[in-house]
Amino acid sequence: MGEFELIRNYFAAAPCAQAGEGVALGIGDDCALLAVPAGEQLAISTDTLVAGVHFADPCDPFLLGQRSLAVAVSDLAAMGATPLAFTLALTLPMDSADWLQAFARGLNAMAQSCGVRLVGGDTTRGPLSLTMTVLGRVPTGLALTRSGAQPGDLLCVGGELGNAAGALPLVLGQRTAEPAIAEPLLAHYWSPQPQLALGQALRGKATSALDISDGLLADCGHIATASAVGLLIESEKLPLSKALRAFLGQNAARVAALSGGDDYVLAFTLPPAELPQLLADGWPVHVVGRVVAGQGVTLLAADGQDITPATRGYQHFRETP
Amino acid sequence: MGEFELIRNYFAAAPCAQAGEGVALGIGDDCALLAVPAGEQLAISTDTLVAGVHFADPCDPFLLGQRSLAVAVSDLAAMGATPLAFTLALTLPMDSADWLQAFARGLNAMAQSCGVRLVGGDTTRGPLSLTMTVLGRVPTGLALTRSGAQPGDLLCVGGELGNAAGALPLVLGQRTAEPAIAEPLLAHYWSPQPQLALGQALRGKATSALDISDGLLADCGHIATASAVGLLIESEKLPLSKALRAFLGQNAARVAALSGGDDYVLAFTLPPAELPQLLADGWPVHVVGRVVAGQGVTLLAADGQDITPATRGYQHFRETP
Repeated sequence: MGEFELIRNYFAAAPCAQAGEGVALGIGDDCALLAVPAGEQLAISTDTLVAGVHFADPCDPFLLGQRSLAVAVSDLAAMGATPLAFTLALTLPMDSADWLQAFARGLNAMAQSCGVRLVGGDTTRGPLSLTMTVLGRVPTGLALTRSGAQPGDLLCVGGELGNAAGALPLVLGQRTAEPAIAEPLLAHYWSPQPQLALGQALRGKATSALDISDGLLADCGHIATASAVGLLIESEKLPLSKALRAFLGQNAARVAALSGGDDYVLAFTLPPAELPQLLADGWPVHVVGRVVAGQGVTLLAADGQDITPATRGYQHFRETP
Repeated sequence: MGEFELIRNYFAAAPCAQAGEGVALGIGDDCALLAVPAGEQLAISTDTLVAGVHFADPCDPFLLGQRSLAVAVSDLAAMGATPLAFTLALTLPMDSADWLQAFARGLNAMAQSCGVRLVGGDTTRGPLSLTMTVLGRVPTGLALTRSGAQPGDLLCVGGELGNAAGALPLVLGQRTAEPAIAEPLLAHYWSPQPQLALGQALRGKATSALDISDGLLADCGHIATASAVGLLIESEKLPLSKALRAFLGQNAARVAALSGGDDYVLAFTLPPAELPQLLADGWPVHVVGRVVAGQGVTLLAADGQDITPATRGYQHFRETP
């Protein structure tokens, strides 16, 4: 048995790889088999993370396993889908049992937290990178796409923004901070929590949705384009964590919230009539702007002045080799 | 718009990425949405190919696009599934429009030949590698797994074996051959044809199946293990191409057929009563052995002597960094 066959067997034995609901056949055959209930569609998304591009190299393998799955599953949350399964293609430069065990522990923790099962993949030798394909199910016609925003809708986000961007100097070792500041920021970076329950609660209510991976401004641009509408963002309304404001100051915290990446918080548009019940039910919905006729994203100051930066978002860490 | 967003848009515009049967939502949102008809299951498989490990580097990007998709789709053939969609995670060291165009042309050609649509993926900068996840559909309960072989079944393959292994010295530039020999071998290596129609024809007939990627001996070992049976292979019955015999000689051709990789021909077990109709219908079914009570794979000479090599298969090109 080859080295990489051993690794495959190692993953096949992981708790998250055991058969369960929706998985008719798991790891070990040419394909896995998934059951998709009648009246539901399959949602699918693929993400690649490359060492030194999307995450620091070296980094803690437990945290990497946790974060990489969370990032992938967040795309299911953005569609309002219920997670079903994932595949993992892992390219490794070395065969380190310690590294693999820690990585698999992190992967398992996030898989169990998200209710998603490992059903296949591939393990190869090469420079460290991971590709995850996640699969979920969503009632036919109820998936949250980017294309249904209507003028008059509210623009909302599902939580505080900018924490992961704020954490980046800590992750890269460029800055330090006291634990009360560093810990919540790093927690958001290393173990973002895909907003699966919120996404499912928004089915039939939100008119568009996505998860913020490239910063609010850049990602709202995707909704504006796909829905052929304009979006106004009120900069004073951005939810910013206490830790982020303490670490960066109010202005830089706002820039991180607008243009930083890796938040994996949902952004969505909502007819105003839907808001009261969602708030009454306790969902974390923050109104940050509104949808208007027109195009593009406009950033407004408290006095209504247009303060849209010339460049919306930037080529963040993930695209800076 | 970043360099890699441009590349994503480039793939989104490819013919194979346009919406079609079974694809409710294609590239461009957080997830794609697939329709799986009632009474069918979803089959899913992931393969990674790394430059310099799984294919020569540099190599012709058109041929790489063609071959990498064929290798992935072959897993659907082995389950008896009908191809539906695939995702592509492409990691590229450079942004070369010429390279991408040629790669996409090869990918498109194979996608159209296999009836499979590109529904998503990711493009990142880094050392060249590809991960493809293929999805197909198969009537519930009719997927061909590795675990149903019964003593008394015939062991069959769907075509000539060893051609891709024979082509390897040509691919690597270690040997040359006249076109009448080189062309059919290289064609098999660079554009293997996934045996989709054969796989579908075997639904409800074959008791087990897989596609041969690691050589007949090694892959039959998977059937023997999963089915808890023994397999006897009669070495004289292996179908060998004229080109392979001319290039390697009879003995080395047989070794290539037994232990070479990358054939992507189906191997399957079949109750004897099923054979006549499959042959009458013109399916390429070659009986190479039989299933017996016991375990493991045994290789028999023409006189019935056990000539099983000590090592079944080898760490072939794909696992030799």
